[in-house]
Amino acid sequence: MKLARFTHSLCCVAICSLTMIAPLQAQNKNVPNAADSDPQRLGWMIGTPPPADKLIMQPQSNYFSFPKLRWTVCHIRELLPTQQVSRGLGAPAPLEYALDDNIDQIRFMPLGGKSLMNWEQSLAANYTDGMLILHKGKVVYERYLGCLNEYGKHAAMSMTKSLTGLLAEILIAEGSLDENARVNTIVPELTGSAFGSATVRQVMDMTTALYYSEDYADPHADIWQYSAAASPLPKPPGYQGPDGYFDYLKTVKKAGQHGRVFGYKTVNTDALGWIVSRVSGKELTDLLAEKLWQPMGAEQDAYMTVDGKGTPFAGGGLSAALRDLGRIGQLMLDNGQLNGQPLFPASVVDSIKAGGDKQALAQAGYKALAGGSYRSMWWVMHNEHGAFAARGVHGQTIYVDPTAEMVIVRFASFPDAKNSKIDPTSLPAYQAVAEYLMSKNSGAGE
Amino acid sequence: MKLARFTHSLCCVAICSLTMIAPLQAQNKNVPNAADSDPQRLGWMIGTPPPADKLIMQPQSNYFSFPKLRWTVCHIRELLPTQQVSRGLGAPAPLEYALDDNIDQIRFMPLGGKSLMNWEQSLAANYTDGMLILHKGKVVYERYLGCLNEYGKHAAMSMTKSLTGLLAEILIAEGSLDENARVNTIVPELTGSAFGSATVRQVMDMTTALYYSEDYADPHADIWQYSAAASPLPKPPGYQGPDGYFDYLKTVKKAGQHGRVFGYKTVNTDALGWIVSRVSGKELTDLLAEKLWQPMGAEQDAYMTVDGKGTPFAGGGLSAALRDLGRIGQLMLDNGQLNGQPLFPASVVDSIKAGGDKQALAQAGYKALAGGSYRSMWWVMHNEHGAFAARGVHGQTIYVDPTAEMVIVRFASFPDAKNSKIDPTSLPAYQAVAEYLMSKNSGAGE
Repeated sequence: MKLARFTHSLCCVAICSLTMIAPLQAQNKNVPNAADSDPQRLGWMIGTPPPADKLIMQPQSNYFSFPKLRWTVCHIRELLPTQQVSRGLGAPAPLEYALDDNIDQIRFMPLGGKSLMNWEQSLAANYTDGMLILHKGKVVYERYLGCLNEYGKHAAMSMTKSLTGLLAEILIAEGSLDENARVNTIVPELTGSAFGSATVRQVMDMTTALYYSEDYADPHADIWQYSAAASPLPKPPGYQGPDGYFDYLKTVKKAGQHGRVFGYKTVNTDALGWIVSRVSGKELTDLLAEKLWQPMGAEQDAYMTVDGKGTPFAGGGLSAALRDLGRIGQLMLDNGQLNGQPLFPASVVDSIKAGGDKQALAQAGYKALAGGSYRSMWWVMHNEHGAFAARGVHGQTIYVDPTAEMVIVRFASFPDAKNSKIDPTSLPAYQAVAEYLMSKNSGAGE
Repeated sequence: MKLARFTHSLCCVAICSLTMIAPLQAQNKNVPNAADSDPQRLGWMIGTPPPADKLIMQPQSNYFSFPKLRWTVCHIRELLPTQQVSRGLGAPAPLEYALDDNIDQIRFMPLGGKSLMNWEQSLAANYTDGMLILHKGKVVYERYLGCLNEYGKHAAMSMTKSLTGLLAEILIAEGSLDENARVNTIVPELTGSAFGSATVRQVMDMTTALYYSEDYADPHADIWQYSAAASPLPKPPGYQGPDGYFDYLKTVKKAGQHGRVFGYKTVNTDALGWIVSRVSGKELTDLLAEKLWQPMGAEQDAYMTVDGKGTPFAGGGLSAALRDLGRIGQLMLDNGQLNGQPLFPASVVDSIKAGGDKQALAQAGYKALAGGSYRSMWWVMHNEHGAFAARGVHGQTIYVDPTAEMVIVRFASFPDAKNSKIDPTSLPAYQAVAEYLMSKNSGAGE
């Protein structure tokens, strides 16, 4: 069934960024490594027209399957309808550079590993498409691999959630959104759903109690109805289900009590997107442009996928340029300031950095992130460096380390959706780079 | 049938820009005027979500029907897959301004009209969405109406053809494309089609002899198969026809002798797009970026719709910002130079301005454009001012008047696809503005 295959792809876009830190697993021998699955090398979509066996067409081709996804993550707009996130019309805010090639040789022990790996090796291990490291506001490392180049945009996947959460925090700080308000007082259409009785904060922190399953093995799982509703393609004949993100949200029922357990469910972010749009009177894309892309001097427009009613996919639809997500990370590191001017109040970042309910996350079984929390759609590590991150499946991350004054942005197309398989060669690598940067003479290169 | 309705919309994108200059016709009383059909006023797609009766969804809604098209022309990417035309990463090349509000009061006699109209009135008469006038390289007039604002992009419709033709002329001037070569020596896949035996020049000037009908009243007309092939949506079950622009072009048969009669058929431009891509080894979008958008310092990315194989729609798929098409027009006026530096050889514009075969155009029945011609996908007026133009249905134009040193760019969403209904209140208006600008003290405002 064509729709099923298409919606499976959408599911992949919607899928959650799992955060369990598993021991280092040997990559399946049947899965080609980063070099062998490079989309240029495989010849995907090259030629006018590409050869039949090198086409990645929608929706028949299951374009989010590996290794096709190594091409697809840079080309979402060529497969789906999208809305622009305008950077505005002026000159971009320049990024300063202080490149340091020694970073490639920094060594670290992967979690559960037996031998050291260096930074450069970790890029290939993680099927990295783009890597940017900022230290004290300057770019110290930048690489484009796989499908990505500096003119390109890459799927941010669930990092989109963190930007939706950031917008919500900004509206709270500005006084136009009350985090303690019940959702049905803002979006009356959600009154009959589980969201209606939740507070905005519970939605932001994903502690809502939802009857909602993302079990892909179950053909009756809610994720399938969600995906069918979200598809911008014409509904199949006789389709009677909800149409669009908002319509679907109205059907989500309550299971249990809000505010007790963390449950990573993408529909929370789409509900938050509705809240943010209703309060601001603006599409999420326009709000991203107004609050972030334009004032921060983004270098390129970003874009978001939309459903058949033009609603942007708040839970996972953003594609953006590497450096522009670097600008977002730097803004977070600098508590909302750019060149000493506040783009948004420092309380926004304070709220996120403080973290959410550790107990709620622990109860959800995220043992390996013990002590961590989820706040306003950001992952808060509560580690010694006070790090926090935006994360998306297949290896997307914005990792902010306030102690090391470091921001790392990674785009990737790891074969498996689970970040738990990438964390062992990522999190200790980030820590090693942070320690290296902190150890450098603080005046060097400036 | 859903596909039929969707493809009808695509047809509207593909439709030709007729150039018959008909006498001024009273607008149908049942068609709302520009103010009454303003998409903001009608509330199309406003709200989160928009009310059911204000939705413009694809493909069920026939989104290119009037008055919906007044919203759609600014939102093509929200309905269809697209490829970016990158402006690059630097600062845009600034446009100088010397605004002159007196232009609004310039009066002219519409063709076939009985009373004078002023410029400002002509904007509403033509359902104008964007208007830019450059004189001696400076912006003297700029308006955003309807769905358009300065951050927006508008469908260029068949002006896309002129940009494809411009790229072909650039490749000829650079020596990588031979206008006298037979098409099958460049694109062997077209050997069995009508295009195979034509020369590149015949394709560029649309003097190929094609068995191809764009008669929308005929359900068996070729345009329907073309549209079905071009649709990026999944093909219906059992579909056996061609898939994509290139596949379709291979099926076009010859009817008569090439080089004799002008026939405005969009498939010529798609064939030229294939030729240009094959010769350059680049997608049309990348070539537009490399040859025009980046070197000319465009302010915004543009984009093109694609078929299900990722092939950009060379015959009509471009959407762009108003000022950026102003930059294109100014480049044409300045023979390819920007700030005294050549972006492409002057021979490119010389070739276009010289015009094509007037006899071929006259034989096709374009009596009202007697003395005019079509050259490299540009309309050449052969009037006293040596004007030439890119034109697209529903009122799109880039009008270059070398004598008056004037460029006019208009985006519009006129209810009828035929430019012949807009020309009576456009062409004499352009001439009046040209004469006004020429009459101004040449040193004024500088």
